[in-house]
Amino acid sequence: MKLVTYKYSGKQQLALLIDDHLYNTNKLDASLPDNMKEMLREWEKHSAVLKPIDKQIKMQSLTVTPDAQFSKSDIMAPVPEPTSCRDGYAFRQHVAAARRNRKVDMIAEFDHYPIFYFTNHNAIQGPGDIPCMPDHFQKLDFELEVAVVIGKKGRNFTAAEADQYIAGYMIMNDMSARTLQMEEMLLNLGPAKGKDFSTVIGPMMVTPDELEPYKVPTKPKHTGSSYFLAMTCKVNGELVSEGNMADMDWTFAEIIERCAYGADVLPGDVIGSGTVGTGCFLELNGTGLLNNPDYKVQWLQPGDVVTLEIDGLGVLTNTIVAEQTSWSILGEKKKFIG
Amino acid sequence: MKLVTYKYSGKQQLALLIDDHLYNTNKLDASLPDNMKEMLREWEKHSAVLKPIDKQIKMQSLTVTPDAQFSKSDIMAPVPEPTSCRDGYAFRQHVAAARRNRKVDMIAEFDHYPIFYFTNHNAIQGPGDIPCMPDHFQKLDFELEVAVVIGKKGRNFTAAEADQYIAGYMIMNDMSARTLQMEEMLLNLGPAKGKDFSTVIGPMMVTPDELEPYKVPTKPKHTGSSYFLAMTCKVNGELVSEGNMADMDWTFAEIIERCAYGADVLPGDVIGSGTVGTGCFLELNGTGLLNNPDYKVQWLQPGDVVTLEIDGLGVLTNTIVAEQTSWSILGEKKKFIG
Repeated sequence: MKLVTYKYSGKQQLALLIDDHLYNTNKLDASLPDNMKEMLREWEKHSAVLKPIDKQIKMQSLTVTPDAQFSKSDIMAPVPEPTSCRDGYAFRQHVAAARRNRKVDMIAEFDHYPIFYFTNHNAIQGPGDIPCMPDHFQKLDFELEVAVVIGKKGRNFTAAEADQYIAGYMIMNDMSARTLQMEEMLLNLGPAKGKDFSTVIGPMMVTPDELEPYKVPTKPKHTGSSYFLAMTCKVNGELVSEGNMADMDWTFAEIIERCAYGADVLPGDVIGSGTVGTGCFLELNGTGLLNNPDYKVQWLQPGDVVTLEIDGLGVLTNTIVAEQTSWSILGEKKKFIG
Repeated sequence: MKLVTYKYSGKQQLALLIDDHLYNTNKLDASLPDNMKEMLREWEKHSAVLKPIDKQIKMQSLTVTPDAQFSKSDIMAPVPEPTSCRDGYAFRQHVAAARRNRKVDMIAEFDHYPIFYFTNHNAIQGPGDIPCMPDHFQKLDFELEVAVVIGKKGRNFTAAEADQYIAGYMIMNDMSARTLQMEEMLLNLGPAKGKDFSTVIGPMMVTPDELEPYKVPTKPKHTGSSYFLAMTCKVNGELVSEGNMADMDWTFAEIIERCAYGADVLPGDVIGSGTVGTGCFLELNGTGLLNNPDYKVQWLQPGDVVTLEIDGLGVLTNTIVAEQTSWSILGEKKKFIG
């Protein structure tokens, strides 16, 4: 199943997506909620109701009038009100390149435990405009990632059990303001302020069964599902990043096991993979792998259109918008110096 | 006003605290919600109703029968369902000592911007048991802090305006599992896993007007309110930490300004100050300032009783409890080595 949240009659509405058609969940079956938050709270029960309906519509054994057209609707984040947002660090290539750029060796500990951090779940958004402040434009960057959302409360379970806690998969763009981020990370905290203004997910949430055809063997010694899904980012139509979800060195199952050790994971928790190799300008600038030879260094600019695509998960498009203000907190600090 | 959330008839209940008496908010005035989440969502309106009632009860011009006794009630976190939880880094002494322990110089950037990070708001708890897993006992620590909760939605306002966004103050104990924390911070992320199992706030939320008598001048060049409030931590009755909120080098107003730059702050957002100087075993062990000469190094153990006290904000008491399991994720990593 593919699930979408969109604006319908002035409020958020959950819908099943089939071809270009949106079918409002609560109209398909009166027992189903009209929003993703409640849908995830009882995911096992509700998805068991929705799945046969999805199948019947696809098989044309059930005829339902669509409520809207996907391509013409105001699409929101598929999980507009996540319970939390963690971001992982699963792709070795990204970590190795980032460290090379900082002229430090790859760190053995990367292969020992699948770390994550918490980011601002109240800044989750879907496709569309990303409003940015002047300080965000100091090295403004995208990050090409895949994310999962949790559909079942749990605690202290193993990686072998963890895939069953995943309700679905989504594209994620973990927007990053690198100057703010580098400032705080000098003090060994974060990232936090550098990433708290926008994390984009969408345009749809796709259930694990839809990704079965893409399944590939998990890397040696690792546990949990692995999928061969090509990932790309284009800026203003120009290809800048290419990667594959199968290159995740840590699986989502392993990341979730760590999240759930001595702490609850909850329906609505969103967890990102971390950036795929080549999946941000910070890495591309440092490795000299920018596709466009006209640029020595590239960052996002006002008006840029950022398009992320992952096989099976759709296309996520956003436009960078400059807020009409000159206010800087990078500038503010000067009063405390000297 | 002092506000408390406690278990009443099997559910969470918001109450006004006067002396040792608890008065359920919705019984004092039918327009008031019975829980902190809704109270904060319209804090200006609701607190304007509650404040005259608080005053009348204190002046004995209004006689109301209390609903419970504070000292005999099952007290929860005053904000049991925070919208988010950030933690700051406001006390220079703590940062300087931490860096000295790691044999690195104090960093000039500390004085340039008031950093923070996001922690697990779904692990907020009140007084009582703190259940810990085996890995948490690898260098288990408290952190003595003060916290605020936001009572008004806002974005892009200055430090000069920020104090008016504070609904109240609380004691915070940012529980920390140092081995897990050091692991992830080696990879330059977090802290996250090292602190995601428990953050304690309480036992009450105190409105800013109650702290007026403690107000002191703000440090030179800084903006926002500053309060002279002694802070202590005892473990099993033995004093281990002593500090003062007036030693915060960054004010809450300045931290909140940074939080709100290009991002919403929301009613129910909890923001910690960061650890006061001497306010954790990590610092005390490194500086040799442990009060008890019997210990060369001290960490929290199963059964330990941790008591935090801050002038005007009450006493916050927790007991460390070991979960009955031997499961370790620190041990798990070995399978990936060699």
